[in-house]
Amino acid sequence: MPNYRLGIEYDGAAFKGWQIQGGGEPTVQGALVEALGRVTGERVAVTGSGRTDAGVHAEGQVASFWLESDWDPFRLQRALNGVLPRSASVHGVEIVPKGFDARRSAVGKRYRYRIWNGPDPSPLRAARQLHVPKRLDVVSMQAAAAGLVGERDFASFQAAGSDVVTTVRLLSRLDVVGKPGGEIEIVAEGSGFLRHMVRNLAGTLIEVGHGKRSPGSMAALLAALSRSQAGPTAPAQGLTLEQVDYADFGHEKRSDAGA
Amino acid sequence: MPNYRLGIEYDGAAFKGWQIQGGGEPTVQGALVEALGRVTGERVAVTGSGRTDAGVHAEGQVASFWLESDWDPFRLQRALNGVLPRSASVHGVEIVPKGFDARRSAVGKRYRYRIWNGPDPSPLRAARQLHVPKRLDVVSMQAAAAGLVGERDFASFQAAGSDVVTTVRLLSRLDVVGKPGGEIEIVAEGSGFLRHMVRNLAGTLIEVGHGKRSPGSMAALLAALSRSQAGPTAPAQGLTLEQVDYADFGHEKRSDAGA
Repeated sequence: MPNYRLGIEYDGAAFKGWQIQGGGEPTVQGALVEALGRVTGERVAVTGSGRTDAGVHAEGQVASFWLESDWDPFRLQRALNGVLPRSASVHGVEIVPKGFDARRSAVGKRYRYRIWNGPDPSPLRAARQLHVPKRLDVVSMQAAAAGLVGERDFASFQAAGSDVVTTVRLLSRLDVVGKPGGEIEIVAEGSGFLRHMVRNLAGTLIEVGHGKRSPGSMAALLAALSRSQAGPTAPAQGLTLEQVDYADFGHEKRSDAGA
Repeated sequence: MPNYRLGIEYDGAAFKGWQIQGGGEPTVQGALVEALGRVTGERVAVTGSGRTDAGVHAEGQVASFWLESDWDPFRLQRALNGVLPRSASVHGVEIVPKGFDARRSAVGKRYRYRIWNGPDPSPLRAARQLHVPKRLDVVSMQAAAAGLVGERDFASFQAAGSDVVTTVRLLSRLDVVGKPGGEIEIVAEGSGFLRHMVRNLAGTLIEVGHGKRSPGSMAALLAALSRSQAGPTAPAQGLTLEQVDYADFGHEKRSDAGA
């Protein structure tokens, strides 16, 4: 009974988030379970590295699952991409050791929040970037971001009503990158993220960029440990889960060799 | 009675091309005429630099029109973006000298054809890039492209059934750019383009990249002066009209100052 791991890219606009819901809404997890059922004939439990909310995109979400039957990883990948909706695509299927679990084994994640900072709406950017018409001061945003990096209690940036054991997380990187032409990207890397944490960081940094908060005010904001003190939750369509990192589990057989 | 020029970006997937059609299908020209009607109360004839086909995107399409009333360019721009569908956005509205006409005054255009050359489909690229799963040889494509640049008769690359006075065009640039990660872009710049010409060039270069044609066969292909000799028309969603160039007409008043 082999344990499988796969990578999955998806267009967040097409799904009501990662997690299967009661009402039959389209979810990424639901689409994978259905595709695996059609391909293998098995009803499989699929574990993701974490949930993404409705509208959030992924380039490198990771999932794991056990199959009764023995499938060649490359054949399984091709079959899954044949039956999945066009809004999702699987890559890098491999058989992994028993101990691997997409959620529990994850040691880090990288997210990117994309902003279009130009005066006019940009239809070709609208699916992936938040339009912020008023000019943002990138240097202030960078200074504020530097004050948020580290192992800290991010309770102020957690979605209200969340229930987790600890709100301490290691945020190892929070870069604000101004690109030529008016695009701005916020890159967040860390051991784990609270619900809405990246979008709340983005919403707060946007307020800094507009001069509504000073870059130096981040320490007090963290110390407040209160969601009501931080900026608004930035909209989902700007956010992409880029990569999930795992310690080296080795692999037994992978689809890349056949690709 | 001022003469106006504007830039317009649009998501080609939302329109049945640039040109107004009989059946009430959504077109970019139609959306502009309607938006100008709602904003100014005038029924205006809008001229584009050229037609784009259904599904082709534009970052920098240019249009011109005359108004009876005198509108401040920046106010006009803001009002148009308030009533246009979200799939189109106007920028750079300005009042231009009488002699300016978006089509007749254009001296050059730049198009970009985007390809995703990876084994798996990529949902986040699907709206803007053609998926070519089989590996393309970029060096061969570059060699073939070099043999197409110049002032030449491009009859072999014109849509069948076209009716133009001459099929000679100056193709001043045809670059094939391999990007890290598997994206390939074909950039075409010239004084003007025949119908489907960029997509037929792209379809032919893709055949070169797959070894179905030799890079050295372009001279004979041009000399054939026959559409049936070239490769297939590459799909519309990979193509973007990036820029239209004009000789310096000066300007009287422009919206950028207010932005």
